[in-house]
Amino acid sequence: MTTTGFDPMWAALAPIGRDGATGGYRRFAWTRTDHDLREWFAAECADRGLVLTEDRAGNQWAWWGDPDTTPGIVMGSHLDSVPDGGAFDGPLGVVSALATVDALRAAGVTPARPIGVVNFADEEGARFGIACAGSRLITGALGADRALGLTDGDGITMAEAWRAAGRDPSTLGPDAEALRRVHAFVELHVEQGRTLALDPDRSHAVGIGTDIWPHGRWRIEIPGEANHAGTTRLEDRRDAMLGLATVVQQARSYAAELGCVATVGKVRVEPGGVNAIPSHVTAWLDARGPAERAVRATVGGVLTAADELDGTHEEESWTPTTRFDAALLSRLTGILPHAPLLGTGAGHDAGILATHGIPTAMLFVRNPTGVSHSPAEFAEPEDCHRGVAALTAVVTDLCTSDHRDPGTQTEDLQA
Amino acid sequence: MTTTGFDPMWAALAPIGRDGATGGYRRFAWTRTDHDLREWFAAECADRGLVLTEDRAGNQWAWWGDPDTTPGIVMGSHLDSVPDGGAFDGPLGVVSALATVDALRAAGVTPARPIGVVNFADEEGARFGIACAGSRLITGALGADRALGLTDGDGITMAEAWRAAGRDPSTLGPDAEALRRVHAFVELHVEQGRTLALDPDRSHAVGIGTDIWPHGRWRIEIPGEANHAGTTRLEDRRDAMLGLATVVQQARSYAAELGCVATVGKVRVEPGGVNAIPSHVTAWLDARGPAERAVRATVGGVLTAADELDGTHEEESWTPTTRFDAALLSRLTGILPHAPLLGTGAGHDAGILATHGIPTAMLFVRNPTGVSHSPAEFAEPEDCHRGVAALTAVVTDLCTSDHRDPGTQTEDLQA
Repeated sequence: MTTTGFDPMWAALAPIGRDGATGGYRRFAWTRTDHDLREWFAAECADRGLVLTEDRAGNQWAWWGDPDTTPGIVMGSHLDSVPDGGAFDGPLGVVSALATVDALRAAGVTPARPIGVVNFADEEGARFGIACAGSRLITGALGADRALGLTDGDGITMAEAWRAAGRDPSTLGPDAEALRRVHAFVELHVEQGRTLALDPDRSHAVGIGTDIWPHGRWRIEIPGEANHAGTTRLEDRRDAMLGLATVVQQARSYAAELGCVATVGKVRVEPGGVNAIPSHVTAWLDARGPAERAVRATVGGVLTAADELDGTHEEESWTPTTRFDAALLSRLTGILPHAPLLGTGAGHDAGILATHGIPTAMLFVRNPTGVSHSPAEFAEPEDCHRGVAALTAVVTDLCTSDHRDPGTQTEDLQA
Repeated sequence: MTTTGFDPMWAALAPIGRDGATGGYRRFAWTRTDHDLREWFAAECADRGLVLTEDRAGNQWAWWGDPDTTPGIVMGSHLDSVPDGGAFDGPLGVVSALATVDALRAAGVTPARPIGVVNFADEEGARFGIACAGSRLITGALGADRALGLTDGDGITMAEAWRAAGRDPSTLGPDAEALRRVHAFVELHVEQGRTLALDPDRSHAVGIGTDIWPHGRWRIEIPGEANHAGTTRLEDRRDAMLGLATVVQQARSYAAELGCVATVGKVRVEPGGVNAIPSHVTAWLDARGPAERAVRATVGGVLTAADELDGTHEEESWTPTTRFDAALLSRLTGILPHAPLLGTGAGHDAGILATHGIPTAMLFVRNPTGVSHSPAEFAEPEDCHRGVAALTAVVTDLCTSDHRDPGTQTEDLQA
């Protein structure tokens, strides 16, 4: 297997941003840790003679060949993490992409198109609250003004974070030039569920993505009335924490009934004193599922329960089903004929680029427990190597074959 | 009515530590705001020729007469607040005490005992988590080493806060000398419930405290398993937020059934990301009630529910019923024969001193809504003046009559 470079790169990344106590990663955008990750990426690209550029959102693109002459085939993912995240979500795609460059060269492939490797910035949105910020910014899905005003938990704006990282926030914005260089994008990612692991014959280490589930976030405000926890009779109370309990249980109940997933993962309780009846709770609802109508119905049920508590709510984001490019998908199924097809409930930069009209595909590497966004996130080393092999097969085909453009041959290939 | 000084003092205190947005107070121990409040108190005492001393916990004592010769009658309360607290909880007792000194003098009273006014430090425990820290420290109920190591929300220890306030933390500790000066303590406080307001003939602006309800705090740890909110099937989840919902509802249900009050006012959710299934929730339970057995049963029910979620718990504090000095209580009912008697679910410095064996009493001033620990906390100005009049009557009697010591005549007066 052609995975020369994978293991040493993986080992070099392991300590960066790892929390000694939990073993989880705290790799947040535009921090010192993020800087170290970006420097690591730049050094790996330099070792391979790739030409590194940054776009207007700070995403790093490394090129083998000149993408201004001919748009290229791009691989990659991101290096940042959620709080106490795992080692695989993001880095597996970046390291596999670099290892694929090694494999292509070891095999003597002469690409007919440039090959690119991308490290997207701020994919998890762990610091400023908006996922896929790097890809959203260059495609215009997230406006620069809004992004620069986003604040982290310490009240630091993205503009201030950029300046603190030695960057000029005035450059932030859509970047048509960076996107024009991308002929097709293939993101390899650890699976964040157990579809491959639950496969009865256990023979599939790699799957092909078909679509990203519709998903959204809602902020629910639950009112209460501040009062003393020791002296206020139960019948005189209006305790926002009881409202939260109802919302949490309704979310689970509707999701189970309608075949979706719904989660309340973040709450803010005011005033937050042990002896104070909560006067206000803000709860964030995350809901997703294979079918838009079911997700909408789940959320509708929860929001109705919140309304009955005199609550208010706001849709913070909504993304309809994102289907990956049909021609490219068809081509991948030809290259990897046995790979299972699967949808995913997670958002990805690949989804943002697909929505923007760039032919995009995803490969998923088996996750034995399905655990993700946790220190326990894992994939077997052998499966990671199989992922590199699959990506190498796909990119070899895409960069050498004389097929027509993947984005324009939908009918031919679907026939 | 002899309330010469009340209104201007009240007006002078109003702006100190008030949040412009909520109208609530943020008067936290050993902050700049706390310093301003202490300076205000010192100036009012100086204006009256009272001799100001500080004990080893930083509580301020102002004396009319020499308490080292003859222990005195002390009035007072505290000036600090909970987050977004009201104007009355604490300051009403301090301002009423100073106004009572004015009233005694205006009436030409010549005290046979010294008269003291106290401003207890850090009563709410809003910053370092332990209520009545000032009185607990001088009585030894809270050890100095433990206190100095307590941290606030920014990780600042009480020792550091003392140093930042220009104080020497090495002085902190029990103070028998300060306590020896107290012959009896009377704390006037706004009622934190509606017992007086609900009185059918609406004729009682002031009540007499009988006891402080048994009360405690428990920390409950609810385990979950970190995972991705979009990709983890409901049946594969272990969501700590669902456990919290159960605990909150059980607390309300047991309290209602057993005639107690129970509150979950503070929670910590980890990792706290919108798209992360909560891996751990810490919830604090506050429970109180008129009867110890019922409070214990309420808490037992909730903790059993937590056990069933594989949770753990720790009793952070437990205070049995505190009965105020029977002789002093009897004497107050003689002075204020129509005043209703009432227990309270709130802790007070008066309770700490009573537990330490100092004859202690409380007066409560009517609260029309019962709301407390909230910007909406209120008492009618006329009722505040009636409170001063009642306190004046009590202290006049205690400092001039030739009754025997209140602490030694229990049997006589209860007969």
